[in-house]
Amino acid sequence: MKAAHQMPGASEVLTTGDQVTVAMDAMGGDYAPREILKGACEGAVRWGARLILVGDEPVIRRYLRRIRTTASIEVVHAPERIEMGENPAAAIRRKRDSSLVRCAELVRDGRAHAMVSAGSTGATMAVASLILKRVAGIDRPGIATVMPTISGQVVVVDVGANVDCSVQNLMQFATMGSIYCQDVMGVKSPRVGLLSIGAEPTKGNELTKAVHKALSESDLNFIGNIEGGPLFEGAADVVVCDGFVGNVVLKVAEGVAKMIQEIAQRKLWANPWYKLMLLGMAPGLKQFKKEVDCEEVGGAPLLGVNGICIVCHGNSRAKSISSALRLAVRAHNNDVLGHIGRILEQPALHAAHV
Amino acid sequence: MKAAHQMPGASEVLTTGDQVTVAMDAMGGDYAPREILKGACEGAVRWGARLILVGDEPVIRRYLRRIRTTASIEVVHAPERIEMGENPAAAIRRKRDSSLVRCAELVRDGRAHAMVSAGSTGATMAVASLILKRVAGIDRPGIATVMPTISGQVVVVDVGANVDCSVQNLMQFATMGSIYCQDVMGVKSPRVGLLSIGAEPTKGNELTKAVHKALSESDLNFIGNIEGGPLFEGAADVVVCDGFVGNVVLKVAEGVAKMIQEIAQRKLWANPWYKLMLLGMAPGLKQFKKEVDCEEVGGAPLLGVNGICIVCHGNSRAKSISSALRLAVRAHNNDVLGHIGRILEQPALHAAHV
Repeated sequence: MKAAHQMPGASEVLTTGDQVTVAMDAMGGDYAPREILKGACEGAVRWGARLILVGDEPVIRRYLRRIRTTASIEVVHAPERIEMGENPAAAIRRKRDSSLVRCAELVRDGRAHAMVSAGSTGATMAVASLILKRVAGIDRPGIATVMPTISGQVVVVDVGANVDCSVQNLMQFATMGSIYCQDVMGVKSPRVGLLSIGAEPTKGNELTKAVHKALSESDLNFIGNIEGGPLFEGAADVVVCDGFVGNVVLKVAEGVAKMIQEIAQRKLWANPWYKLMLLGMAPGLKQFKKEVDCEEVGGAPLLGVNGICIVCHGNSRAKSISSALRLAVRAHNNDVLGHIGRILEQPALHAAHV
Repeated sequence: MKAAHQMPGASEVLTTGDQVTVAMDAMGGDYAPREILKGACEGAVRWGARLILVGDEPVIRRYLRRIRTTASIEVVHAPERIEMGENPAAAIRRKRDSSLVRCAELVRDGRAHAMVSAGSTGATMAVASLILKRVAGIDRPGIATVMPTISGQVVVVDVGANVDCSVQNLMQFATMGSIYCQDVMGVKSPRVGLLSIGAEPTKGNELTKAVHKALSESDLNFIGNIEGGPLFEGAADVVVCDGFVGNVVLKVAEGVAKMIQEIAQRKLWANPWYKLMLLGMAPGLKQFKKEVDCEEVGGAPLLGVNGICIVCHGNSRAKSISSALRLAVRAHNNDVLGHIGRILEQPALHAAHV
């Protein structure tokens, strides 16, 4: 663990042009700290980031000793942990020394460019909103996730940060999702769709009908309502919905993929002859699975707070954590935050979003 | 088409114990009338039903001449058609001579036990509500659909009849879904789940949190909130949600399954060596596809109206129409309607649902 001493120290405030520094919540997630540390070190080397590992220092150092890494690492001691079941707001006040709170403070104080956590999504959201604060012009931050489609990928926002949303919330999600898609995924003038249950503007619930009208009048490249079929065909680059519906979409997509895999295994793998053929197709199947895997992307940005905050699945393993680091690096290098801030400052566009 | 003259005639009112008579909307659906007539004739023979084919009589007779069938058939002339884009309520008033309106009238007047249509879902719902009327104690009818799971099947209600729902609406969907699951699918004391975004009662939106409380106090076998993952694992027999969310679930499930199939084809089928192996696995793959096919069930009952009304996908082909007929026959033979009526008449249970 000699690497731990290579960094100038988290006490220095970063300036533009610095190598991206990521504050990693080492204690959050089902497989923390082992898989988190493994993925963070792999990702840091691969995407050229510096790491501040935040959590129980003796535990982190013990695990780090087993990992051979050339990553530039510093450890910040934060012995407390916010558990999954805890009330986020109360836990933050009580546990100032938790890894999550410390991560956000590192970003707030300019000592890290981004934070990544696989801990409780609710707690991460609450911590980010309280400590990093919301971007001016944003009422509620939204979680954007990238899902696979037949022809590429789609950004879905919000997937669980806000369950009951207003028209304004969805308009802001659309703006932020569009910027994220442009800056991080490199899509020029992203096609923005509104998740609904019919292509016609009159189809949907009270919320989506009002949002359809507002999006039509906005400066975004709005392509209308979009249903589950076209969504997974890749008909839009960004799809907007409230956090309840978005989370249902995410979980249903994962559930259906898992069901198909399990039934295929039961029906095909059980037959020795088929098994042989499946083994022969292993490389192709592996590539196929990678392409349809919703978890491949690993990590979803919380958009609308003053800092880059990547939220990971609670069940993230090393691979997902490494991908999340990549998102953090990209979001920083492409200045997503600055872009969101500048767009929201434009009075004309802002007015169109209200 | 001598079969057409075997029936006593639709003018006679049916009595209990009669063979099930189904009024089939021959003109509704993307593949009407050919696939509808083919599926209806196949289904009628297979499930022992009598058919009243409703639509443009000369057209129906022309198609019937090509179909060899021993089904017992009568044709009722109804030259008008309600198109997909039309406002349902206005179309019903204007087009009294449409196949959809005539089908509902046949059921209302006791000349058919059930109606089946692959026409516009909105129009079918409106026709059924206006002509058949709602069951006493039901504020809004709901569409129940059966979806595949790892361990069997699940009834999801509502999947699109009502986009903005109250607590009471969802409670009624739960009651009707539970009865349908028991009577038609033969599940004793069906496990009722509430679709939400977290297992804890506190997770979800305003609506689901209130419904969770009401379901906990009801006489139903309520097992709590259920997410997309457990839903497709078969953790519940009936899953309740509002029609917007339910329709999104249905379309996303179909969309993901289609995406997986297309990507598998692109990745695997394109390789001649893999193609050979896939051909070798054809029988297994066919059975597998049948098991995960959301459309296999074909037809979803509209629960809560005074008559059996089966709504089919607009893109239904013969196989789906035949399955829909089977549902109609089962729903009649197991007296789903009587059962719903009796349950709703129980004052204690009714009170628990409000």
